[in-house]
Amino acid sequence: MEYNKVTAETIEELRRIFGERNVLTEVEKIEPYSHDESGTQFKHMPEVVVKAENEDQIAQLMKLANREHIPVTPRGAGSGLAASAVPLHGGIVLAMEKMNRILEIDEVNMVAVCEPAVVTNDLCRAVADKGLFYAGYPMSVEESYIASNVVTNAGGSKVVKYGSTRSHVLGLECISPTGEKLVLGGKRRKETSGYSLLQLMIGSEGTLGIVTKVIVNLMPAPGVTVDLLVPFANFDDAVKASSNIIRTTKVYPVTMEFMDGFSVRETTEYFNLPSLPAQDKAEAYLLFTFEGKNQEELDELAEKAGTACLDMGALDVFVASTKTESEKVWKVRTSMPDCVTTKYRHMLAGDVVVPRSEVAEFIAKTQDVMKKYTGLKLTFFGHIGDGNIHPNFLDTLGEYTDEEWLKVAEQAYGEVCMLGSQLGGTVSGEHGIGLGKKTVLRQTLGEYPISLMKGIKKVFDPNSILNPDKIFDLEQ
Amino acid sequence: MEYNKVTAETIEELRRIFGERNVLTEVEKIEPYSHDESGTQFKHMPEVVVKAENEDQIAQLMKLANREHIPVTPRGAGSGLAASAVPLHGGIVLAMEKMNRILEIDEVNMVAVCEPAVVTNDLCRAVADKGLFYAGYPMSVEESYIASNVVTNAGGSKVVKYGSTRSHVLGLECISPTGEKLVLGGKRRKETSGYSLLQLMIGSEGTLGIVTKVIVNLMPAPGVTVDLLVPFANFDDAVKASSNIIRTTKVYPVTMEFMDGFSVRETTEYFNLPSLPAQDKAEAYLLFTFEGKNQEELDELAEKAGTACLDMGALDVFVASTKTESEKVWKVRTSMPDCVTTKYRHMLAGDVVVPRSEVAEFIAKTQDVMKKYTGLKLTFFGHIGDGNIHPNFLDTLGEYTDEEWLKVAEQAYGEVCMLGSQLGGTVSGEHGIGLGKKTVLRQTLGEYPISLMKGIKKVFDPNSILNPDKIFDLEQ
Repeated sequence: MEYNKVTAETIEELRRIFGERNVLTEVEKIEPYSHDESGTQFKHMPEVVVKAENEDQIAQLMKLANREHIPVTPRGAGSGLAASAVPLHGGIVLAMEKMNRILEIDEVNMVAVCEPAVVTNDLCRAVADKGLFYAGYPMSVEESYIASNVVTNAGGSKVVKYGSTRSHVLGLECISPTGEKLVLGGKRRKETSGYSLLQLMIGSEGTLGIVTKVIVNLMPAPGVTVDLLVPFANFDDAVKASSNIIRTTKVYPVTMEFMDGFSVRETTEYFNLPSLPAQDKAEAYLLFTFEGKNQEELDELAEKAGTACLDMGALDVFVASTKTESEKVWKVRTSMPDCVTTKYRHMLAGDVVVPRSEVAEFIAKTQDVMKKYTGLKLTFFGHIGDGNIHPNFLDTLGEYTDEEWLKVAEQAYGEVCMLGSQLGGTVSGEHGIGLGKKTVLRQTLGEYPISLMKGIKKVFDPNSILNPDKIFDLEQ
Repeated sequence: MEYNKVTAETIEELRRIFGERNVLTEVEKIEPYSHDESGTQFKHMPEVVVKAENEDQIAQLMKLANREHIPVTPRGAGSGLAASAVPLHGGIVLAMEKMNRILEIDEVNMVAVCEPAVVTNDLCRAVADKGLFYAGYPMSVEESYIASNVVTNAGGSKVVKYGSTRSHVLGLECISPTGEKLVLGGKRRKETSGYSLLQLMIGSEGTLGIVTKVIVNLMPAPGVTVDLLVPFANFDDAVKASSNIIRTTKVYPVTMEFMDGFSVRETTEYFNLPSLPAQDKAEAYLLFTFEGKNQEELDELAEKAGTACLDMGALDVFVASTKTESEKVWKVRTSMPDCVTTKYRHMLAGDVVVPRSEVAEFIAKTQDVMKKYTGLKLTFFGHIGDGNIHPNFLDTLGEYTDEEWLKVAEQAYGEVCMLGSQLGGTVSGEHGIGLGKKTVLRQTLGEYPISLMKGIKKVFDPNSILNPDKIFDLEQ
């Protein structure tokens, strides 16, 4: 794709639309908008950054960008792991950070209406104050924005019971790539009124429209919760137990996470956190959260799940019955991504998802495949309850050059994705495709589905202005 | 749209593809395929009906139809209420009825894999035998097919707790309008791998692809249930209570149905069913189903909901504590559609959905609007828990000619849809747009969203072969 450069006249026009203070051009101010948390490998500088305060400005921007043929890349909190918010072709970054108000918590309809940049956990807390519950809970809950959750169909640790972000979205307002307003869904709870443009927008990684308002479903607040930490001496036992536990207990936990022993030891040491129980003996942990209406119900659930784990080879079952104990365990789990991204100069965060029954075979096969790569360690932590264990590729020896690493990591990840795909899985469960997974997406889906996606992109964005060349290459 | 006619050569080719016994051309044999349950107003005869036995035949059919430029209309059980399965331009009806096997009930992944024509309730019963639960429950559960549930995003009486069919679908296999195979989703439980063609296919009323396999999510079977029938002397009290009850109890019932007094009396008289409690005094009923793990939990729920209803003006609260009592009440509710469609020569089944909080205002305003139409009675029954009360237009005097009725019903329904839309609602909650609601869909959405839908249709179906001119007019 060839685009025009941002000119002085364009900057002037942007200042008229967004106001002087909302248009950034200095290198040091726009640099933070050149990458997300996928690392610097996909870094690309924008030519200008604009901060939107309302949807009218965004509509004007898109009309200008179409007229001048300049690409626009929308950006949330920058906590993405797929480089979806990186301005690959320069141009204009549209920062949403100022549109961050919770507009309404509607207790009758049990919905919340948010501007795009509401931080997910701020929403969770605000509705909890009213005895309500928002079930979306990505691991970046303290920083990611609600609209970004929507466009990546964010997952997290509560998917096993409550589903991905898609399950919680009732309505969206968007500005289309050509600057038209789109009102999709609303406070209503069901709909069969033509093709679901709402569902199409969810998970489209900011390539089909810019979300300006989000309406999410709320639920009555769940009662009490308990966390169970279950160490296993044997990696395979933990994996197999995970796929059997729901079947055996016939109960969906809110959370069923997996951590391998290596990741637990690395994280507790790196951040100087207290060790987890049985850390010297455990090669793997399962971490469950159960919800119940009262303590009696919880005790029964914990007993049932604990017994099932012990039957399947667990070393022990630790019940985190206080908030402090719970936080200690979760601190280790939530610090894992930070540990691997900061400790290692080279790493690649994988996001393969397979059917729950195939997790054990998937992990075994990937470890086989990895044997041929020197100095590349594969670790696993993630949402095993929904088959989405993140395989993380680490350059443990630190002997690869940047260029070598990109090549070897992409090749290894490609192999792992093909394995996942052959087992009924797919290349991304929650991070999205962005820039890094375009090749494996095409390889695993085949050309026809990609051609349909490209056709849909063209319908929404005939001039390829909004976040071009993400998910798939427009001209390939 | 102009199409070619089915020739003797085409019939020969169809016989080679589908086998002699699966190609119907005699008028009396193809007549049943000329309409659905939306009545005879949209009836149109196909030129030939083929019965598919596998996906290869369907792929061959679509390639033939594209080559010969003949329209193909896929058809399930014919229980639709929007004429989506009516062969508007003649051509070929593709009957799915022979592909009706449950292929797998996978207890580890908790999914069922079905051929398209599995009857919904057959699936519910088969999984119940294994202690599992399929949460889709359209009112046509005894006849409608699972794939048809998918393509209409069917609702029903359990949406308030479990969501529409969309919430239960994990994967689909389809043949595209051009005869390509599409595998969308699978047994995996989450996905952010490019635009969700899976979600786009759901609710597309058989215009974007022919579903050949459906993978649905199953849950652990719920424990025990109880039905509560709550009569109100005052129509408005019932409507207002409905929008307050979830808020007050902070519990989602599985079901919250509404029946007006007129519909109850008509149905019990017409089918000679036992009267419901307080039938002489009640102008409206709410019907709840609650689920609980055990009787104790159920009693508590029933008590809480019952008290809330009495506080809000209910005449009484009747607890259907036995299966027989429950069936008696539900028989009245499920017979309502049959009563209006068979008793009245002219009727129109509406499907407006509004936010729960707006139901009372919506009903009040529609009754105002109706005053100017002579002999046209508007009755309401439906899924009030999700704001989807079906307004039914009845020609009670029987004085309209067919032509007059079509005109007056369309005009009145258009007005009611506009009211619903202004209150944050939409024209169809679960029946779909099909043929009858194309105009109101365009009026309420506006041109831009329709132009996107038409663009998407063109991407999937460049020659407009699959079920053309449903949802929107291709050439308007």
